[in-house]
This record gives sequence, C-alpha cells and structure tokens, in this order.
Amino acid sequence: MEVYLDNSATTKCSKRAVDTMVNLLTADFGNPSSLHSMGAKAEEYVKEARKKIAKTLKAEEKEIFFTSGGTESNNLAILGCVEANKRAGNHIITTAIEHASVQQVFEHLKEEGYRVTYLPVDVSGVISLEALEEALDEETIFVSIMQVNNEIGTVEPIEEAVQLIRKKAPKAVIHVDAIQSYGKMAICPKKLKIDLLSVSGHKIHGPKGSGFLYIKDKTKIKPILFGGGQQKGMRSGTENVPAIAGLAEAAAEAYDHLEENVSHMYGLRDYFIEEVTKIEGVTVNGSTGMQAAPHIVSVSVEDVRSEVLLHSLEEKGIYVSAGSACSSNKPSVSRTLKAIGLKNNLLDSTVRFSFCESTTKEELDYTIANLKEIIPFRRKFTRK
Amino acid sequence: MEVYLDNSATTKCSKRAVDTMVNLLTADFGNPSSLHSMGAKAEEYVKEARKKIAKTLKAEEKEIFFTSGGTESNNLAILGCVEANKRAGNHIITTAIEHASVQQVFEHLKEEGYRVTYLPVDVSGVISLEALEEALDEETIFVSIMQVNNEIGTVEPIEEAVQLIRKKAPKAVIHVDAIQSYGKMAICPKKLKIDLLSVSGHKIHGPKGSGFLYIKDKTKIKPILFGGGQQKGMRSGTENVPAIAGLAEAAAEAYDHLEENVSHMYGLRDYFIEEVTKIEGVTVNGSTGMQAAPHIVSVSVEDVRSEVLLHSLEEKGIYVSAGSACSSNKPSVSRTLKAIGLKNNLLDSTVRFSFCESTTKEELDYTIANLKEIIPFRRKFTRK
Repeated sequence: MEVYLDNSATTKCSKRAVDTMVNLLTADFGNPSSLHSMGAKAEEYVKEARKKIAKTLKAEEKEIFFTSGGTESNNLAILGCVEANKRAGNHIITTAIEHASVQQVFEHLKEEGYRVTYLPVDVSGVISLEALEEALDEETIFVSIMQVNNEIGTVEPIEEAVQLIRKKAPKAVIHVDAIQSYGKMAICPKKLKIDLLSVSGHKIHGPKGSGFLYIKDKTKIKPILFGGGQQKGMRSGTENVPAIAGLAEAAAEAYDHLEENVSHMYGLRDYFIEEVTKIEGVTVNGSTGMQAAPHIVSVSVEDVRSEVLLHSLEEKGIYVSAGSACSSNKPSVSRTLKAIGLKNNLLDSTVRFSFCESTTKEELDYTIANLKEIIPFRRKFTRK
Repeated sequence: MEVYLDNSATTKCSKRAVDTMVNLLTADFGNPSSLHSMGAKAEEYVKEARKKIAKTLKAEEKEIFFTSGGTESNNLAILGCVEANKRAGNHIITTAIEHASVQQVFEHLKEEGYRVTYLPVDVSGVISLEALEEALDEETIFVSIMQVNNEIGTVEPIEEAVQLIRKKAPKAVIHVDAIQSYGKMAICPKKLKIDLLSVSGHKIHGPKGSGFLYIKDKTKIKPILFGGGQQKGMRSGTENVPAIAGLAEAAAEAYDHLEENVSHMYGLRDYFIEEVTKIEGVTVNGSTGMQAAPHIVSVSVEDVRSEVLLHSLEEKGIYVSAGSACSSNKPSVSRTLKAIGLKNNLLDSTVRFSFCESTTKEELDYTIANLKEIIPFRRKFTRK
C-alpha cells in the first residue's frame, strides 16, 4: 500500500489541471503578448483563470496577479510593499512561526536596516494579540501573518489582528500568507480587511511553478521583477499560461467541493489524532477542533528520532515529513516547534502527517497499524 | 494551412518535454526537499536535468540555476550581481537593443543612482566596440550584451567585447542574454569567458515558466528571492520539477540535432529572404549570412502598417509578430528598429517572421504567395 501523507509539502496535480496544461503546451500554445489570434486565445485563458480564481476569494479579477509560486508571491508582497511604502516608516511585523519564504525576507529587510518585530505564539501556535498591540506604532508600515501554520496547522486570528492593526497603525499594509489555508477554508480578503494574500498552486493539486498574489485594488506596491510589463507591470515575463490555467482548474475544484472536502478531512484528522495518541509516548502539537486546519497533524514521539520514524514509515510505503519539508533539505531545528515551547527532547522527534481530500480512512488505519509496530520497536534501540 | 512563424515569441512544447512533465505532475510528483524516497526521486530529476543542460554548454552542473523563465534569469543576473558588487563601482553597461527584461532592469538601476551606458549599434544591429571601449572604466562593474537580437536576429560580437572588457574593466561581471541564441548555436560560456548566461525554456520547445541562469563558479552574486534556500540559496522556492525536467528534454533535443536544425533553418531563412525581397517595396533588416541568427527575419514593407499585415496574414492562418511580442501587448515603437536607424515610415511597417526546426519550405512558399497578394492589395488602400 502506498500512502502519501505529505500533502503540505506538495500534492499530486489533478487530472483536470494536467489536461488543461497539456492542451496549452501543445495546441493553444501562443504567447499572450502576440497580437494574432493564437496570442489572443492564450490571453483569454489567462483572463478566464483570473476570473475563476477571483471568484474563489470573492475578489475582483484585477486584484489577482500570477507568480511562479508561493515563494515569489510572498517575496513580491513583502519586498514590493515595503519598498513602495518605505518613506512612511521603518517598522515591520511578522510572527515567530512563518514559513521561510516570509521569515527570510524579513531577515533580509532587517539587514537593510528595517526594525523587525517577530510576534511570539502560545503553546498552540496562536500569536499573541497583546504582543501585536504593543508592537504596533506609527512607524509600522507592514504586517505579515500566516493564516495556517505549515507545520502544526494552527489557524491564526487574522480578523482580530487586523482590527488592532487598523486601529493602532492605520497606514500599515497587511499581508496574509494563505499558502496552507487556501483550498482548505473559505477566504474573503475583503471581509478579512487585508491588502495582500499569497497562494501557491502545488499545495492544492495545481502545478508546481504556479501561484498568485491577491493585491487589493489601489494598494501601494512595486514590482520586484522588471521587463515586458506583463500583468499591468506588476509581474513581467511571458505569462506561464499552462500553469496559470492549471492552477485555476485546481482552485475551482477545491472551492466547488470545499465543504465536503473539509468535513472529510476534519473527520480523518480527528480520527487520526484519537488513534495516534493511544500509542504510548505520542502527543499531538498545536490546537485541535476548528481552531486548527483540517489537513495537518504534527506528532511528537518520545525517544524516536523524526528521521528514523520517517524512513521506517517510508519502508511501508507511507510518506510523511520531518518538520517542514518546504525548505532545502538540510535538517534543522524547526522555528515553529521551538516557538510553541516544545520540549527539547521532542524537537527532533516530531513528524508531520498532512492529508488531502482523497486521503482515506483505510490509509490512516494502515498508517496507525504501522506506527503501533514501528514506534515500540525503534524505541527499544533508543532506550538501550 | 496553419503556419506558425512566431517562434521567437514562443514555441510549441515538444512531445518529449510534455511526456516528462505529465509524469512529474501525476506520478513522480514529490517535493525535492522531502526527505523520503518520493522527494529523493524528484531531486534526482532536477539533478539529471542540471546535468543535461550543463552538457549543452560544456559547463559544470553546479553552475546551472533554474528560474521561472528568461525574465527572472535576466533580473537575477543583473540585480543579483550589481547588488553583490556595488561597493566596487557605480557604472553599468548594456546595449541600445536589449530585450525589455534587461533594459527595464537597467532603467530601474538608473533610478537607483547607477550610471548607465547604452551602447549604440550600427545599421545591422551590431554594437559599436569603439563605444564599448570608450565607455569602460574602473567604475564599470557589470556589462550585459545579448547574443542574438530578438527582433532582427543580429549576432553580437561577444568574444571581441569580452576581450575589451577584461582589458579595460577587469572587475566587471559579464552577462549574456542568450534567450534567442540558445538552441540555435553552440555556446560555451567558458570559451566566451563570460560569467552569466540567461536562457528561457519556452523559446526552445520547452515549457513556459522554465529557464535557467548559468553562473560561473565563484561569481559574486546575491539572490533576489528569499526563502527555503533551495538551489544553494540562489533561488528559493520549491523547484518546479516538471518544468525543469521538461526544459532539460527540450535542451537535449535542441543540442542533439543542432547542426542539422541550424543548417535547415539557415536554408529556410536564405530562401525566404530571397523570395520576400522580390516583392516591391520590401526590405529585410539586420545582417544576413552567418552574421545573423538562422531563425529570425525582420521584414519592412513600405506603405503597409505592421498590424494590418499581421492580421491579413492571420486570416490566411499565418502567425507572425509585429516587432517583438515579448512584452505586454501595447504596441509601441521598437527600440531596436530605431537604434539601427530604420526610416521613420518603416518603424511601424515591420513584421518579424521566426522559424523553428520543423518549419518547412512549403509553409514559406504559402507565406510568400500570400504576401505577394496581400501587400499590393493593402498598399492600394494606404496610397489612396
């Protein structure tokens, strides 16, 4: 049996997305900038994709900008906005548990001279609203908060945070990294009152190399890549039409079946948590219930190193992640797990199981059965 | 009959590339950063792709960095290198006829305070080596010269330029935009003694959203996107494995059959030039012979506007470009055509025919036959 439980690292591309891409790679392969009908047709696909995606967010089409993926979306949001607003202040805020594609951009800006606040989180990974309130001042020009943490699935209190920010730092631009939340919950940037929202395609059964940034109309932002002026100058470079259209298909699929998918995944998650915590010395990190995402379970296993567990599971055809896989494959201590105060001995004994809508209870039963064998067996060696 | 003669705008993706991509989107879809075997397999594809591409340039594997396309390659080369070398000087040089993804980056750096020299070109589009020699000084930190012009096919004298640069500005980093030359000629960065070379996938029957930057080992350069630290920190973001592997297939195909393809295209080009210039009031811009690329013919047609000609050809199923299509589809006067001193009345009466290795003589005969009908017919209305 093969059980892929690493969907937060990347997903299998959906058939609908792949079929769309193949057509655009081989038949309707024009350049949207070409003035002839093959160009116009390609442009039409991009427009149609923008429309489909805007619909999933209840946003306007002109607010969707396609990128090469989540990393570029986050970089464009942060670097582009901070550059455009640098005369308004010098202070920027994010959280202690962001993905590297946000955190490293903040580190870069810190080196450039910006004052950076990293908000602490509680034991469940929820940011401290008190710390946010304290940090905000008239110099604050940018705040970036992830919606769902990629390692432990925590859902951050975006609405409450936005209220505080709008009150205490009215000129701050607000960015939400929605890479792990998009497709797993209803998201309406207008209702959240945020300015920017990043999405990646390959986390939702779209192609790698696809993504978009929602930019609220009239937000002050500068491009980070320069060239042919595509996408109203915000993202130069020939539009990756196959990836854009593939992403739109995947997005439509995710949102057409959102409720049933999410409820299926919550069911799986709750079942998995119940079963896995029956194993001795096994704990689950972060929140449960509706305060956490439906597709991520972070599991700490006393006296079994993550890598050992990962490879033992792999031998049984079960694929999981040690911490976050979304960074170069050097193993390093997880910032998120440290930030929630996980005990030192568990930092290196934690694996992530991440589901998708086609994950089945049978797959989880198989996984649990194997964990019940592997964990005591591996522990024997560690405890010797 | 459908005749696609806009291959310098974009190409049809090759079957080999598409098959490879479909497998990597749906079967071997792992994230190269994942520690399990599906991750390792994905990483192996990236490695293999890097190897294949390095071979086409007689370069080392560690010198190939994958990007989201030509625009990103050019931006990374220029912005990354200028940032890394800014303490060494303030002067940067490029040509008057670069693609927007180079020219606009230079304009951005000019706004940032850099001194920019745009080298003039002669009537064939060849840069002035005298102007280069004059411009070079001890403050020069970066020089970017395209290898083949995208609008008129001129091949620039890279070797001679490099000799001058190395003599007069030894610390300057040298970048070559090879987006229109890669796959159309043998290129060896080591032999050319250059530091950086940009390539785009979708110009050589690879997928859109793919490309790479050759970075000579030990070149001082900084990343422009920050995140998970993939590709030795030079390009963060989950590697777009399907696009990378597809690009490598297309590159291998191009270079496995380089000589026959190029000779086929030169034959087509010479035939097309001979036939098209028989039509009254029709001239070809740029060089001919081996001093120009095999796949681009820029044709000026007295008293017929480019857009009119383009759409008339389109009605016959023939797809060409008005000037360069690689920019947002606002029509604007071509910098290249102005720089070669094209008469004002022809600036807006010029179309580009661009071939690929599967273009046939029959397709060109059909095109010529149609041009012979369309041009006099359209001219009648203009001259009234």
